Amino acid sequence: MIYLDNAATTYPKPDKVYKEMDRCMREYCANPGRGGHSMSIQSGQAVMEAREKVSKFFNISNPMQICFTKNATEALNIAIKGSLKAGDHVITTSLEHNSVMRPLKLLERNLGVEVTVVSGDVFGEIDPDDIQKSIKKNTRLIVATLSSNVNGILLPAKDIGKIAGENGIMYLLDGSQGAGTINIDVEDMNISMLAFPGHKSLMGPVGTGGLYIREGLKVKSILQGGTGSNSENFTQPEFMPDLMESGTLNTPGIVGLGYGIDFINSKGIENIRAHKYQLVKMLFEGVRELKNVKLYSKNHIEKNSGIVALNFEGVPSSEISYVLDKVYNIGTRAGMHCAPIAHDTLGTSITGAVRCSVGVFNTASEIEATINALKEISLNVNKL
Amino acid sequence: MIYLDNAATTYPKPDKVYKEMDRCMREYCANPGRGGHSMSIQSGQAVMEAREKVSKFFNISNPMQICFTKNATEALNIAIKGSLKAGDHVITTSLEHNSVMRPLKLLERNLGVEVTVVSGDVFGEIDPDDIQKSIKKNTRLIVATLSSNVNGILLPAKDIGKIAGENGIMYLLDGSQGAGTINIDVEDMNISMLAFPGHKSLMGPVGTGGLYIREGLKVKSILQGGTGSNSENFTQPEFMPDLMESGTLNTPGIVGLGYGIDFINSKGIENIRAHKYQLVKMLFEGVRELKNVKLYSKNHIEKNSGIVALNFEGVPSSEISYVLDKVYNIGTRAGMHCAPIAHDTLGTSITGAVRCSVGVFNTASEIEATINALKEISLNVNKL
Repeated sequence: MIYLDNAATTYPKPDKVYKEMDRCMREYCANPGRGGHSMSIQSGQAVMEAREKVSKFFNISNPMQICFTKNATEALNIAIKGSLKAGDHVITTSLEHNSVMRPLKLLERNLGVEVTVVSGDVFGEIDPDDIQKSIKKNTRLIVATLSSNVNGILLPAKDIGKIAGENGIMYLLDGSQGAGTINIDVEDMNISMLAFPGHKSLMGPVGTGGLYIREGLKVKSILQGGTGSNSENFTQPEFMPDLMESGTLNTPGIVGLGYGIDFINSKGIENIRAHKYQLVKMLFEGVRELKNVKLYSKNHIEKNSGIVALNFEGVPSSEISYVLDKVYNIGTRAGMHCAPIAHDTLGTSITGAVRCSVGVFNTASEIEATINALKEISLNVNKL
Repeated sequence: MIYLDNAATTYPKPDKVYKEMDRCMREYCANPGRGGHSMSIQSGQAVMEAREKVSKFFNISNPMQICFTKNATEALNIAIKGSLKAGDHVITTSLEHNSVMRPLKLLERNLGVEVTVVSGDVFGEIDPDDIQKSIKKNTRLIVATLSSNVNGILLPAKDIGKIAGENGIMYLLDGSQGAGTINIDVEDMNISMLAFPGHKSLMGPVGTGGLYIREGLKVKSILQGGTGSNSENFTQPEFMPDLMESGTLNTPGIVGLGYGIDFINSKGIENIRAHKYQLVKMLFEGVRELKNVKLYSKNHIEKNSGIVALNFEGVPSSEISYVLDKVYNIGTRAGMHCAPIAHDTLGTSITGAVRCSVGVFNTASEIEATINALKEISLNVNKL
């Protein structure tokens, strides 16, 4: 298969990720931090090494401020629910995923948290001034994605961080789309909290993710339970990462994530970004002249994490994705991408869109084949 | 290493678990339920097959009533927090893990939920009559572990289920210790909710667990986010399992769990139970005459999921575990085991205890070597 569903999860992973996960499982996977025997200690060290790799990758000075979660959704839920209280105002954007919107809407209903959604333009571009203008006295948090998971457009993360910093507001960056492709520096971008999945562009396995919380920020936990620490107490420890890491960790997954980051470092994140940009540009330019094709990016697509979203006029996106899969063995994703608000922004809430998302292992010849497939579909689209 | 820390996580796993996880990762691991292409469908089918295996294993008629979680702690948090409200009374036992006690104590503090802890005797034995007597008008939930994670004693799950049923009270079984060794039948035992880890006696990998919720029970979710369903809505879908499965699932882990269950079925759960019983009996009888050794089980230990807890008088448990590891290469777990209330019950809250927990792959000769090591330690314990 030509796999163009990397925004859902990257495939394949680097070979070393598979190998080290398997080695971890077979050779030393005991319960980390919960026993003093040598296998438990080795598991604990392996988790710590991964924590350090993540930390260095995002320029986080204290690795203990990162907790591992099962996915970015858990991380976003912790960050949002753990930091907001009744009466708070939060600013977000019209490009967010349901993993941000659903928790926010829940707090709006149940706690009376006030939510302002700053709208992007028809391509999803967000103007930082609109965020600035939305600030109120009770604004406590700005939460925004690094990049749209629908059309890949980059949001002005650094500008948002600056605005947040100047106004003493917390800034939660959802790195789900882009972490591993676009460089994230929590200091330079003034990020208070960073939620990330391990299994997308960080090249680790599914079942992993994490949350960075700036030292000194008080955030409540969502889960309580065994932490292997303060075991004599019925209250959750207050220190990171134990505060947020209840129950047994996914050690082989976390180990795999660490090796995913090693892979990115060995390639160079700027090279990965350039490679993906070259592929999306090629795809974008290869199909934009096609009759009936509608694209959802601006003519130059530099500000993009690796996604081309498109439709054929009058045809549901699911039909195009179906044909791409069945006839051409090309895997894309149709529909809403769990981001209805972003589809509203792009004007695709009825049709959805065909999302082609590239990964580091995609090649120019795969994109060429995809362009040819779309050309054929364009010629035959009326027969669908 | 002679691995006697199976109550923390079982090691090793069946070879097929390693192989199928690796195959899943390498061959077809896309994002299940989130795309129509063939790899995504294959991933979705693999998750569904595992769901069906779990379902059959616990005699659950509708596999969709099982949601997968990252561990049993998440499952217990959902079950407890999702089903209790202010003014409710809950009954639990003095054998519970912090993954039950910490959420309960949080609800007690924050919501005014009333918690009654029924005490076990000095070996942790719970009298069902004490549970019956604790029922009040506002009792909404009984939550109890299947087996103590400290000394392995079995609780009277079927009796508790009967009492709960007769009184119209929900019964949450924490299967963390025992699921995979002791047969659990949700119908026969009248279980309303069953929380289970995938990585203990179910022989799957860490990073997996799940929660069964009886059809018709209304339980709130803890996380909200992308579910691949109802994507156009800002509210979480209300149907299982999507209600509880936000964000990308740990597909290879879930696949591994399914093969872990296949392994149990191929061996026969009663044979596994008999094998473990033979080993704990051998260990128990092999050390009980030793000078200075204190054991925390009754003379016959039939009612046991596979654990022998012990101490040497006057020596902290951590020192014994340390020597077992360093000198004899035997992995055990000392300390509190995240269950301080159980240690209170057994009278070991100061010393902790050395926990030797057996698994299906342990052999009689390993237990013999452990007995010999403990005999040597017994002779030299004053020199420690």
